Amino acid sequence: MPTNKQILLDNRPTGEAQASNFKLASGTTPPLKDGEVLVKHHFLSLDPYMRGRMNDAKSYTAPQPVGQVMQGGTVGEVVESRSPKFQPGDKVVGMGGWQEYSVVSADQPGSIRKVDTTHVPLSHYLGAVGMPGVTAWYGLVKIIEPQAGQTVVVSAASGAVGSALGALAKARGCRAVGIAGGPDKCRYVTEELGFDACVDYKQHKDAGSLSKALKEACPDGIDGYFENVGGMVMDAVMLRMNAHGRIALCGMIAGYDGQPIPMAYPQLLLTNRIKLQGFIVSEHMEVWPQALQELGQLVGSGKLRPRESVAQGLESAPEAFLGMLKGKNFGKQVVKVA
Amino acid sequence: MPTNKQILLDNRPTGEAQASNFKLASGTTPPLKDGEVLVKHHFLSLDPYMRGRMNDAKSYTAPQPVGQVMQGGTVGEVVESRSPKFQPGDKVVGMGGWQEYSVVSADQPGSIRKVDTTHVPLSHYLGAVGMPGVTAWYGLVKIIEPQAGQTVVVSAASGAVGSALGALAKARGCRAVGIAGGPDKCRYVTEELGFDACVDYKQHKDAGSLSKALKEACPDGIDGYFENVGGMVMDAVMLRMNAHGRIALCGMIAGYDGQPIPMAYPQLLLTNRIKLQGFIVSEHMEVWPQALQELGQLVGSGKLRPRESVAQGLESAPEAFLGMLKGKNFGKQVVKVA
Repeated sequence: MPTNKQILLDNRPTGEAQASNFKLASGTTPPLKDGEVLVKHHFLSLDPYMRGRMNDAKSYTAPQPVGQVMQGGTVGEVVESRSPKFQPGDKVVGMGGWQEYSVVSADQPGSIRKVDTTHVPLSHYLGAVGMPGVTAWYGLVKIIEPQAGQTVVVSAASGAVGSALGALAKARGCRAVGIAGGPDKCRYVTEELGFDACVDYKQHKDAGSLSKALKEACPDGIDGYFENVGGMVMDAVMLRMNAHGRIALCGMIAGYDGQPIPMAYPQLLLTNRIKLQGFIVSEHMEVWPQALQELGQLVGSGKLRPRESVAQGLESAPEAFLGMLKGKNFGKQVVKVA
Repeated sequence: MPTNKQILLDNRPTGEAQASNFKLASGTTPPLKDGEVLVKHHFLSLDPYMRGRMNDAKSYTAPQPVGQVMQGGTVGEVVESRSPKFQPGDKVVGMGGWQEYSVVSADQPGSIRKVDTTHVPLSHYLGAVGMPGVTAWYGLVKIIEPQAGQTVVVSAASGAVGSALGALAKARGCRAVGIAGGPDKCRYVTEELGFDACVDYKQHKDAGSLSKALKEACPDGIDGYFENVGGMVMDAVMLRMNAHGRIALCGMIAGYDGQPIPMAYPQLLLTNRIKLQGFIVSEHMEVWPQALQELGQLVGSGKLRPRESVAQGLESAPEAFLGMLKGKNFGKQVVKVA
């Protein structure tokens, strides 16, 4: 029964999220029952969707309960098992939350699964070969459905979802164009991730200006758009969409603090006969095996080289999370717990 | 060679369209060449999409050329034929434009087709059993894809598209709810067209208020929405959409004069995982035969009783058109030419 430090949601944000919304707690893990395993977490995943769950609002997932451990993805190692399915030493990915240990019922479908770290580093199962990667895969393959030669744009291109989107689009013969904040991220997007171009949205004050830069980066217009941020960036892309374009709507981080984020030109959806589809990847579990296989191959072969921002120690999770919401991270944000 | 009065687009509107944008002209029809027929128009169709074409803007169709006859659907009678496919007396539907006669190449696919007026009055081939009816059919069947018991909402419900949408939705076992302007139109929508409920948007100053009325009319939420108007009405409906709802985006009449019509809550597309699809029915000719067959049966059997506003004489077309854009018509707007 090791001591188990935890980060709880202490209270809900009003407006911007703050460190004071979180609280550090400490306890011990309960003894295992039959069928349970004890997992020691190595890395926690920090993801933008968690901000939405901190609000007490109708959304695609139930709100994060106040006073309880922040929920989220984890990778780690089985340290004790009362299930024949897992042995101590097994590397596993699950939803252990912001804490050092979790007790998991091994028989519950989808609770944890073993992963192979021969070719893929453990932490990448929280990113490129995990939920963010599958998110990119679903939006591209099932919604955007690009043909070779078409142009696909993704916002937050240097992040966990965006980087996977670029590699998946290139593998399909598309022109991949990213939108990211700042010259370092843009350089990474083109030089390391292999995008054909990247536009720095921080160089543009409004949608019209950003749209002109997109015109240069996308001389044949935009056929598919994977949206992570919303707001001005989305308006700018919509001004460059081709007829019969497709928009996979995955996140609107610009509106997480409750500020209005109106879409300026919805009539473009009509005049360009655009299909726009909102989705959440956890509702499409049927695609995960196929998607994870492709993503694992891309990472294993070096065609997708995801970058990580690693925060050290459980206590650093709230600050790392708040920084990520402001774009301070560079690549997939994780917390190294052990 | 009869004299042929015509209405031309004389100049493009700046802001709201005006009668002075049009000009009456007169000429004679040219002698027929081999394969051509001369059609005497009985009715012209006036449709909201024509307003968009008066602008010199990128849209889904090329702009209406200045100085030329206003283009649009017509029904009439063949009065002279140099084609074996048509005989004088044949009733035909085509795209003859705002004039008394048109000369048509009978061999050009889709130029004109014969129609049967035994069970369906000729003018209805411009409305319920024509382009507006097929527009409703496509949006409902191919985009909204409703299941029996689901709730489908349509704006401009008393119009040509809306009335067909209601009958098609009821035929599929749906709850059909209309949005229309004024008590007369709302009464017609429920009492004559058989919608389950109708909300009068003119009773509401903002999306929040209209949304509350929609909550009463749609106690199980909204699964499918057919959009003709955009703006505040669309915002209100989006606030009541169920998870996995579908929006068929057919028109945004609220923005035809160039005013901004931002979508207030695009994040609802994400949180409710909504599919939104813009479309134009002329790009889906493959569905016309099937759609027209069902629509003809609905009209022939009296299950769809479309209402018409009939303006008298070619010269009345501009005023009737401008009135329709302001919702002054009641049902499908046509012009009786002969």
